[in-house]
Amino acid sequence: MVTQIPDIVIGRLPIYLRELRRLQDEGDRLTTSSHELGERLGISSAQIRKDLSHFGEFGKQGTGYHINYLVDQLCQILHLDQTWPVALVGVGSLGTALAHYDGFKLRGFEIRWVFDIDPTKIGAEVNGVHIQAVDELEATIAQHEIAVAIIATPASVAQDVADRLVAAGIKAILSYAPLHLTAPSGVHVSYSDPVTELQRMTYYLG
Amino acid sequence: MVTQIPDIVIGRLPIYLRELRRLQDEGDRLTTSSHELGERLGISSAQIRKDLSHFGEFGKQGTGYHINYLVDQLCQILHLDQTWPVALVGVGSLGTALAHYDGFKLRGFEIRWVFDIDPTKIGAEVNGVHIQAVDELEATIAQHEIAVAIIATPASVAQDVADRLVAAGIKAILSYAPLHLTAPSGVHVSYSDPVTELQRMTYYLG
Repeated sequence: MVTQIPDIVIGRLPIYLRELRRLQDEGDRLTTSSHELGERLGISSAQIRKDLSHFGEFGKQGTGYHINYLVDQLCQILHLDQTWPVALVGVGSLGTALAHYDGFKLRGFEIRWVFDIDPTKIGAEVNGVHIQAVDELEATIAQHEIAVAIIATPASVAQDVADRLVAAGIKAILSYAPLHLTAPSGVHVSYSDPVTELQRMTYYLG
Repeated sequence: MVTQIPDIVIGRLPIYLRELRRLQDEGDRLTTSSHELGERLGISSAQIRKDLSHFGEFGKQGTGYHINYLVDQLCQILHLDQTWPVALVGVGSLGTALAHYDGFKLRGFEIRWVFDIDPTKIGAEVNGVHIQAVDELEATIAQHEIAVAIIATPASVAQDVADRLVAAGIKAILSYAPLHLTAPSGVHVSYSDPVTELQRMTYYLG
Protein backbone atom coordinates (compact mmCIF):
# COMPACT_ATOMS: atom_id res chain seq x y z
CA MET A 1 0.00 0.00 0.00
CA VAL A 2 1.16 3.51 -0.77
CA THR A 3 2.02 5.63 2.23
CA GLN A 4 1.59 9.36 2.79
CA ILE A 5 -1.90 9.59 1.38
CA PRO A 6 -3.43 12.89 2.50
CA ASP A 7 -5.70 12.61 5.52
CA ILE A 8 -8.44 14.41 3.61
CA VAL A 9 -8.46 11.57 1.06
CA ILE A 10 -8.68 8.96 3.82
CA GLY A 11 -11.57 10.91 5.28
CA ARG A 12 -13.56 10.56 2.06
CA LEU A 13 -13.16 6.77 1.81
CA PRO A 14 -15.76 6.05 4.51
CA ILE A 15 -18.18 8.34 2.66
CA TYR A 16 -17.64 6.38 -0.54
CA LEU A 17 -18.06 3.11 1.34
CA ARG A 18 -21.28 4.30 2.96
CA GLU A 19 -22.76 5.28 -0.39
CA LEU A 20 -21.64 2.02 -2.04
CA ARG A 21 -23.40 0.11 0.73
CA ARG A 22 -26.53 2.12 0.04
CA LEU A 23 -26.23 1.07 -3.61
CA GLN A 24 -25.88 -2.55 -2.43
CA ASP A 25 -29.02 -2.15 -0.32
CA GLU A 26 -30.93 -0.67 -3.23
CA GLY A 27 -29.89 -3.86 -4.98
CA ASP A 28 -30.82 -3.01 -8.53
CA ARG A 29 -27.42 -3.37 -10.14
CA LEU A 30 -23.87 -4.65 -9.82
CA THR A 31 -21.82 -1.71 -11.04
CA THR A 32 -21.59 2.02 -10.54
CA SER A 33 -19.39 4.80 -11.89
CA SER A 34 -17.40 7.67 -10.46
CA HIS A 35 -19.94 9.88 -12.19
CA GLU A 36 -22.91 8.29 -10.41
CA LEU A 37 -21.13 8.23 -7.06
CA GLY A 38 -20.15 11.85 -7.53
CA GLU A 39 -23.71 12.88 -8.33
CA ARG A 40 -25.01 11.10 -5.25
CA LEU A 41 -22.34 12.62 -3.00
CA GLY A 42 -21.92 16.10 -4.39
CA ILE A 43 -18.25 15.35 -5.15
CA SER A 44 -16.69 15.60 -8.62
CA SER A 45 -16.15 12.30 -10.42
CA ALA A 46 -12.53 13.35 -11.08
CA GLN A 47 -11.99 13.70 -7.33
CA ILE A 48 -13.38 10.24 -6.69
CA ARG A 49 -11.22 8.65 -9.40
CA LYS A 50 -8.15 10.45 -8.07
CA ASP A 51 -8.86 9.44 -4.46
CA LEU A 52 -9.34 5.78 -5.37
CA SER A 53 -6.32 5.72 -7.68
CA HIS A 54 -4.08 6.07 -4.61
CA PHE A 55 -5.01 2.50 -3.75
CA GLY A 56 -5.10 0.72 -7.11
CA GLU A 57 -7.16 0.25 -10.21
CA PHE A 58 -10.72 -0.50 -9.14
CA GLY A 59 -12.69 0.50 -12.21
CA LYS A 60 -12.64 -0.02 -15.94
CA GLN A 61 -13.30 2.57 -18.60
CA GLY A 62 -16.84 1.86 -19.77
CA THR A 63 -17.92 -0.63 -17.11
CA GLY A 64 -17.13 1.45 -14.04
CA TYR A 65 -16.77 -0.10 -10.59
CA HIS A 66 -18.11 -3.45 -9.47
CA ILE A 67 -19.93 -2.39 -6.32
CA ASN A 68 -19.29 -5.52 -4.23
CA TYR A 69 -15.63 -5.61 -5.19
CA LEU A 70 -15.08 -1.93 -4.37
CA VAL A 71 -16.88 -2.38 -1.03
CA ASP A 72 -14.56 -5.27 -0.19
CA GLN A 73 -11.49 -3.31 -1.20
CA LEU A 74 -12.49 -0.23 0.80
CA CYS A 75 -13.21 -2.43 3.82
CA GLN A 76 -9.71 -3.91 3.54
CA ILE A 77 -8.09 -0.49 3.13
CA LEU A 78 -9.97 0.87 6.16
CA HIS A 79 -9.33 -2.33 8.16
CA LEU A 80 -13.03 -3.09 8.38
CA ASP A 81 -12.63 -6.75 7.49
CA GLN A 82 -13.00 -7.23 11.24
CA THR A 83 -15.33 -5.81 13.87
CA TRP A 84 -13.59 -3.30 16.12
CA PRO A 85 -14.65 -3.63 19.74
CA VAL A 86 -15.11 -0.18 21.29
CA ALA A 87 -14.96 1.18 24.83
CA LEU A 88 -17.36 4.01 25.63
CA VAL A 89 -16.66 6.39 28.53
CA GLY A 90 -19.59 8.40 29.85
CA VAL A 91 -23.20 7.23 30.01
CA GLY A 92 -25.07 10.52 30.15
CA SER A 93 -27.85 11.07 27.65
CA LEU A 94 -25.46 11.22 24.69
CA GLY A 95 -23.47 8.18 25.82
CA THR A 96 -26.71 6.28 26.31
CA ALA A 97 -27.85 7.21 22.81
CA LEU A 98 -24.53 6.02 21.40
CA ALA A 99 -24.75 2.75 23.32
CA HIS A 100 -28.15 2.16 21.72
CA TYR A 101 -27.13 3.22 18.21
CA ASP A 102 -27.52 0.23 15.91
CA GLY A 103 -25.48 1.79 13.13
CA PHE A 104 -22.17 0.70 14.65
CA LYS A 105 -22.45 -3.07 14.34
CA LEU A 106 -23.40 -3.08 10.67
CA ARG A 107 -20.43 -0.89 9.84
CA GLY A 108 -17.56 -2.47 11.72
CA PHE A 109 -17.82 -1.38 15.36
CA GLU A 110 -19.36 -2.69 18.52
CA ILE A 111 -19.55 -0.90 21.85
CA ARG A 112 -18.59 -3.73 24.18
CA TRP A 113 -17.42 -1.92 27.31
CA VAL A 114 -19.03 1.07 28.96
CA PHE A 115 -17.61 3.13 31.81
CA ASP A 116 -19.01 5.82 34.05
CA ILE A 117 -18.02 7.53 37.29
CA ASP A 118 -21.54 7.79 38.71
CA PRO A 119 -22.03 5.09 41.40
CA THR A 120 -25.78 5.03 40.71
CA LYS A 121 -25.06 3.90 37.13
CA ILE A 122 -22.23 1.44 37.77
CA GLY A 123 -23.49 -2.13 37.69
CA ALA A 124 -26.53 -1.26 35.61
CA GLU A 125 -26.79 -2.19 31.95
CA VAL A 126 -27.10 -0.08 28.85
CA ASN A 127 -28.25 -1.92 25.74
CA GLY A 128 -27.08 -5.19 27.27
CA VAL A 129 -23.63 -3.92 28.27
CA HIS A 130 -22.66 -3.81 31.93
CA ILE A 131 -21.63 -0.31 33.09
CA GLN A 132 -18.22 -0.50 34.78
CA ALA A 133 -16.53 1.97 37.11
CA VAL A 134 -13.97 4.24 35.45
CA ASP A 135 -11.51 2.76 37.96
CA GLU A 136 -11.55 -0.41 35.88
CA LEU A 137 -10.65 1.40 32.66
CA GLU A 138 -6.95 0.60 32.53
CA ALA A 139 -7.22 -3.06 33.46
CA THR A 140 -10.09 -3.69 31.04
CA ILE A 141 -8.39 -2.01 28.09
CA ALA A 142 -5.13 -3.85 28.72
CA GLN A 143 -6.81 -7.22 29.20
CA HIS A 144 -8.86 -7.03 26.00
CA GLU A 145 -6.28 -5.06 23.99
CA ILE A 146 -8.94 -2.50 23.07
CA ALA A 147 -7.76 0.00 20.43
CA VAL A 148 -10.81 2.23 19.90
CA ALA A 149 -12.68 4.39 22.42
CA ILE A 150 -15.44 6.97 22.45
CA ILE A 151 -15.47 9.79 25.00
CA ALA A 152 -18.93 11.10 25.92
CA THR A 153 -18.03 12.74 29.21
CA PRO A 154 -18.31 16.37 30.26
CA ALA A 155 -15.54 18.58 28.81
CA SER A 156 -14.05 19.13 32.26
CA VAL A 157 -12.84 15.53 32.56
CA ALA A 158 -12.33 14.62 28.90
CA GLN A 159 -8.58 15.30 28.77
CA ASP A 160 -8.02 13.25 31.90
CA VAL A 161 -10.06 10.40 30.43
CA ALA A 162 -8.15 10.66 27.14
CA ASP A 163 -4.81 10.51 28.98
CA ARG A 164 -5.90 7.38 30.82
CA LEU A 165 -7.21 5.75 27.63
CA VAL A 166 -3.96 6.46 25.81
CA ALA A 167 -1.81 5.25 28.69
CA ALA A 168 -3.81 2.01 28.71
CA GLY A 169 -3.22 1.41 25.00
CA ILE A 170 -6.08 3.08 23.08
CA LYS A 171 -5.00 4.17 19.58
CA ALA A 172 -8.13 5.90 18.25
CA ILE A 173 -10.51 8.19 20.14
CA LEU A 174 -13.76 9.73 18.98
CA SER A 175 -14.58 12.55 21.36
CA TYR A 176 -17.94 14.23 21.85
CA ALA A 177 -16.52 16.62 24.43
CA PRO A 178 -16.36 20.17 23.05
CA LEU A 179 -12.63 20.76 23.31
CA HIS A 180 -9.39 19.89 21.57
CA LEU A 181 -7.68 16.91 23.19
CA THR A 182 -3.93 16.55 23.39
CA ALA A 183 -2.66 13.10 22.49
CA PRO A 184 0.75 11.70 21.57
CA SER A 185 1.57 11.07 17.92
CA GLY A 186 0.40 7.64 16.88
CA VAL A 187 -2.92 8.17 18.65
CA HIS A 188 -5.73 9.38 16.38
CA VAL A 189 -8.45 11.68 17.66
CA SER A 190 -11.66 12.67 15.90
CA TYR A 191 -14.29 15.02 17.19
CA SER A 192 -18.00 15.48 17.05
CA ASP A 193 -19.23 18.88 18.25
CA PRO A 194 -22.65 19.95 16.96
CA VAL A 195 -22.03 23.58 17.87
CA THR A 196 -18.87 24.03 15.80
CA GLU A 197 -20.73 22.44 12.88
CA LEU A 198 -23.64 24.84 13.30
CA GLN A 199 -21.33 27.83 13.70
CA ARG A 200 -19.50 27.13 10.45
CA MET A 201 -22.88 27.32 8.72
CA THR A 202 -24.17 30.49 10.40
CA TYR A 203 -21.14 32.26 8.90
CA TYR A 204 -22.97 31.98 5.59
CA LEU A 205 -26.33 33.13 6.95
CA GLY A 206 -26.87 36.87 6.82
CA MET B 1 -15.79 41.61 4.67
CA VAL B 2 -13.77 39.68 2.13
CA THR B 3 -15.66 37.08 0.13
CA GLN B 4 -14.49 33.73 -1.19
CA ILE B 5 -12.73 32.65 1.96
CA PRO B 6 -12.11 28.89 1.75
CA ASP B 7 -14.66 26.80 3.60
CA ILE B 8 -11.86 25.02 5.44
CA VAL B 9 -10.82 28.36 6.96
CA ILE B 10 -14.39 29.10 8.03
CA GLY B 11 -14.50 25.64 9.61
CA ARG B 12 -11.56 26.47 11.86
CA LEU B 13 -13.03 29.72 13.20
CA PRO B 14 -15.47 27.95 15.57
CA ILE B 15 -12.52 25.92 16.90
CA TYR B 16 -10.59 29.12 17.61
CA LEU B 17 -13.66 30.66 19.22
CA ARG B 18 -14.20 27.59 21.42
CA GLU B 19 -10.61 27.67 22.63
CA LEU B 20 -10.70 31.43 23.24
CA ARG B 21 -13.80 30.94 25.37
CA ARG B 22 -11.94 28.29 27.34
CA LEU B 23 -9.19 30.86 27.91
CA GLN B 24 -11.86 33.33 29.08
CA ASP B 25 -13.22 30.73 31.49
CA GLU B 26 -9.74 30.01 32.84
CA GLY B 27 -9.71 33.73 33.51
CA ASP B 28 -6.05 34.23 34.32
CA ARG B 29 -5.17 36.71 31.59
CA LEU B 30 -6.43 39.12 28.97
CA THR B 31 -4.29 38.25 25.96
CA THR B 32 -3.13 35.21 24.06
CA SER B 33 -0.96 34.60 21.01
CA SER B 34 -1.22 32.59 17.81
CA HIS B 35 1.60 30.51 19.27
CA GLU B 36 -0.35 29.67 22.43
CA LEU B 37 -3.57 29.01 20.56
CA GLY B 38 -1.68 26.81 18.12
CA GLU B 39 -0.09 24.81 20.93
CA ARG B 40 -3.46 24.27 22.56
CA LEU B 41 -5.13 23.25 19.30
CA GLY B 42 -2.40 21.32 17.51
CA ILE B 43 -2.47 23.87 14.66
CA SER B 44 0.53 25.88 13.49
CA SER B 45 0.63 29.49 14.65
CA ALA B 46 1.26 30.55 11.03
CA GLN B 47 -2.00 28.85 10.01
CA ILE B 48 -3.92 30.67 12.72
CA ARG B 49 -2.46 34.06 11.77
CA LYS B 50 -3.21 33.41 8.10
CA ASP B 51 -6.78 32.30 8.82
CA LEU B 52 -7.52 35.35 10.96
CA SER B 53 -5.83 37.75 8.52
CA HIS B 54 -8.68 37.09 6.07
CA PHE B 55 -10.90 39.10 8.39
CA GLY B 56 -8.69 41.93 9.58
CA GLU B 57 -5.87 42.78 11.96
CA PHE B 58 -6.74 41.32 15.34
CA GLY B 59 -3.34 41.05 16.96
CA LYS B 60 -0.26 43.12 17.54
CA GLN B 61 3.32 41.98 17.26
CA GLY B 62 4.49 41.50 20.83
CA THR B 63 1.13 41.79 22.62
CA GLY B 64 -0.78 39.16 20.68
CA TYR B 65 -4.58 39.00 20.70
CA HIS B 66 -6.88 40.56 23.26
CA ILE B 67 -9.02 37.53 24.09
CA ASN B 68 -12.31 39.34 24.69
CA TYR B 69 -11.92 41.43 21.55
CA LEU B 70 -11.11 38.44 19.38
CA VAL B 71 -14.09 36.52 20.83
CA ASP B 72 -16.37 39.44 19.96
CA GLN B 73 -14.95 39.69 16.45
CA LEU B 74 -15.29 35.95 15.79
CA CYS B 75 -18.85 36.04 17.10
CA GLN B 76 -19.64 38.85 14.67
CA ILE B 77 -17.98 37.05 11.75
CA LEU B 78 -19.86 33.83 12.52
CA HIS B 79 -23.12 35.74 13.17
CA LEU B 80 -23.22 34.61 16.78
CA ASP B 81 -24.08 38.05 18.13
CA GLN B 82 -27.60 36.60 18.29
CA THR B 83 -29.06 33.30 19.48
CA TRP B 84 -30.18 31.11 16.59
CA PRO B 85 -33.43 29.30 17.32
CA VAL B 86 -33.23 25.72 16.05
CA ALA B 87 -35.82 23.16 14.96
CA LEU B 88 -35.02 19.52 15.76
CA VAL B 89 -36.62 16.70 13.80
CA GLY B 90 -36.59 13.25 15.39
CA VAL B 91 -36.83 12.52 19.11
CA GLY B 92 -35.31 9.06 19.31
CA SER B 93 -32.50 8.51 21.79
CA LEU B 94 -30.08 10.75 19.90
CA GLY B 95 -32.66 13.50 19.36
CA THR B 96 -33.55 13.36 23.03
CA ALA B 97 -29.87 13.67 23.99
CA LEU B 98 -29.53 16.69 21.69
CA ALA B 99 -32.65 18.30 23.13
CA HIS B 100 -31.09 17.99 26.58
CA TYR B 101 -27.61 19.15 25.58
CA ASP B 102 -26.84 22.34 27.47
CA GLY B 103 -23.90 23.25 25.25
CA PHE B 104 -26.12 24.87 22.62
CA LYS B 105 -27.44 27.82 24.56
CA LEU B 106 -24.09 29.06 25.77
CA ARG B 107 -22.71 29.02 22.25
CA GLY B 108 -25.41 30.68 20.19
CA PHE B 109 -28.15 28.09 19.58
CA GLU B 110 -31.38 27.06 21.22
CA ILE B 111 -33.54 24.10 20.26
CA ARG B 112 -36.96 25.70 20.44
CA TRP B 113 -39.09 23.41 18.27
CA VAL B 114 -39.08 19.63 18.21
CA PHE B 115 -40.88 17.38 15.75
CA ASP B 116 -41.55 13.67 15.58
CA ILE B 117 -43.78 11.34 13.62
CA ASP B 118 -44.55 8.97 16.50
CA PRO B 119 -48.07 9.67 17.86
CA THR B 120 -47.04 8.40 21.29
CA LYS B 121 -44.43 11.17 21.51
CA ILE B 122 -46.40 14.05 20.03
CA GLY B 123 -47.76 16.33 22.73
CA ALA B 124 -45.17 15.23 25.26
CA GLU B 125 -42.28 17.48 26.28
CA VAL B 126 -38.55 17.05 25.93
CA ASN B 127 -36.45 19.38 28.08
CA GLY B 128 -39.37 21.77 28.32
CA VAL B 129 -40.12 21.84 24.59
CA HIS B 130 -43.45 20.56 23.29
CA ILE B 131 -43.07 17.75 20.71
CA GLN B 132 -45.04 18.63 17.59
CA ALA B 133 -46.24 16.42 14.75
CA VAL B 134 -44.06 16.50 11.64
CA ASP B 135 -47.22 17.64 9.85
CA GLU B 136 -46.75 21.01 11.51
CA LEU B 137 -43.19 21.41 10.23
CA GLU B 138 -43.85 23.72 7.29
CA ALA B 139 -46.26 26.05 9.06
CA THR B 140 -44.04 26.36 12.14
CA ILE B 141 -40.88 27.09 10.17
CA ALA B 142 -42.61 29.68 8.02
CA GLN B 143 -44.33 31.36 10.96
CA HIS B 144 -41.15 31.73 13.03
CA GLU B 145 -38.81 32.22 10.07
CA ILE B 146 -36.55 29.46 11.40
CA ALA B 147 -33.24 29.18 9.50
CA VAL B 148 -31.45 26.33 11.29
CA ALA B 149 -32.52 22.71 11.75
CA ILE B 150 -31.09 19.47 13.07
CA ILE B 151 -32.12 16.11 11.60
CA ALA B 152 -31.97 13.17 13.99
CA THR B 153 -34.30 10.82 12.14
CA PRO B 154 -33.61 7.38 10.67
CA ALA B 155 -31.68 7.51 7.39
CA SER B 156 -34.68 6.22 5.46
CA VAL B 157 -36.66 9.43 5.94
CA ALA B 158 -33.85 11.98 6.25
CA GLN B 159 -33.88 13.15 2.63
CA ASP B 160 -37.63 13.63 2.71
CA VAL B 161 -37.33 15.61 5.94
CA ALA B 162 -34.50 17.69 4.45
CA ASP B 163 -36.59 18.46 1.36
CA ARG B 164 -39.47 19.62 3.53
CA LEU B 165 -37.20 21.73 5.74
CA VAL B 166 -35.64 23.40 2.71
CA ALA B 167 -39.00 24.03 1.04
CA ALA B 168 -40.20 25.67 4.25
CA GLY B 169 -37.22 28.03 4.37
CA ILE B 170 -34.45 26.33 6.37
CA LYS B 171 -30.98 27.49 5.28
CA ALA B 172 -28.66 25.35 7.44
CA ILE B 173 -29.07 21.69 8.37
CA LEU B 174 -26.98 19.57 10.70
CA SER B 175 -27.79 15.95 9.95
CA TYR B 176 -27.09 12.94 12.15
CA ALA B 177 -28.51 10.55 9.56
CA PRO B 178 -25.74 8.46 7.98
CA LEU B 179 -26.15 9.51 4.37
CA HIS B 180 -25.36 12.38 2.06
CA LEU B 181 -28.31 14.76 1.68
CA THR B 182 -29.08 16.59 -1.53
CA ALA B 183 -29.94 20.24 -1.04
CA PRO B 184 -30.11 23.24 -3.38
CA SER B 185 -27.24 25.70 -3.47
CA GLY B 186 -27.68 28.34 -0.81
CA VAL B 187 -28.62 25.68 1.75
CA HIS B 188 -25.75 24.51 3.94
CA VAL B 189 -25.58 20.95 5.23
CA SER B 190 -23.19 19.54 7.84
CA TYR B 191 -23.02 15.98 9.02
CA SER B 192 -22.25 14.06 12.14
CA ASP B 193 -21.70 10.33 11.61
CA PRO B 194 -19.68 8.56 14.31
CA VAL B 195 -18.98 5.59 12.06
CA THR B 196 -17.29 7.54 9.25
CA GLU B 197 -15.18 9.26 11.91
CA LEU B 198 -14.17 5.92 13.42
CA GLN B 199 -13.48 4.42 9.99
CA ARG B 200 -11.12 7.19 8.99
CA MET B 201 -9.08 6.34 12.08
CA THR B 202 -9.04 2.56 11.67
CA TYR B 203 -7.29 3.15 8.35
CA TYR B 204 -4.24 4.03 10.44
CA LEU B 205 -4.56 1.06 12.79
CA GLY B 206 -2.74 -2.06 11.69
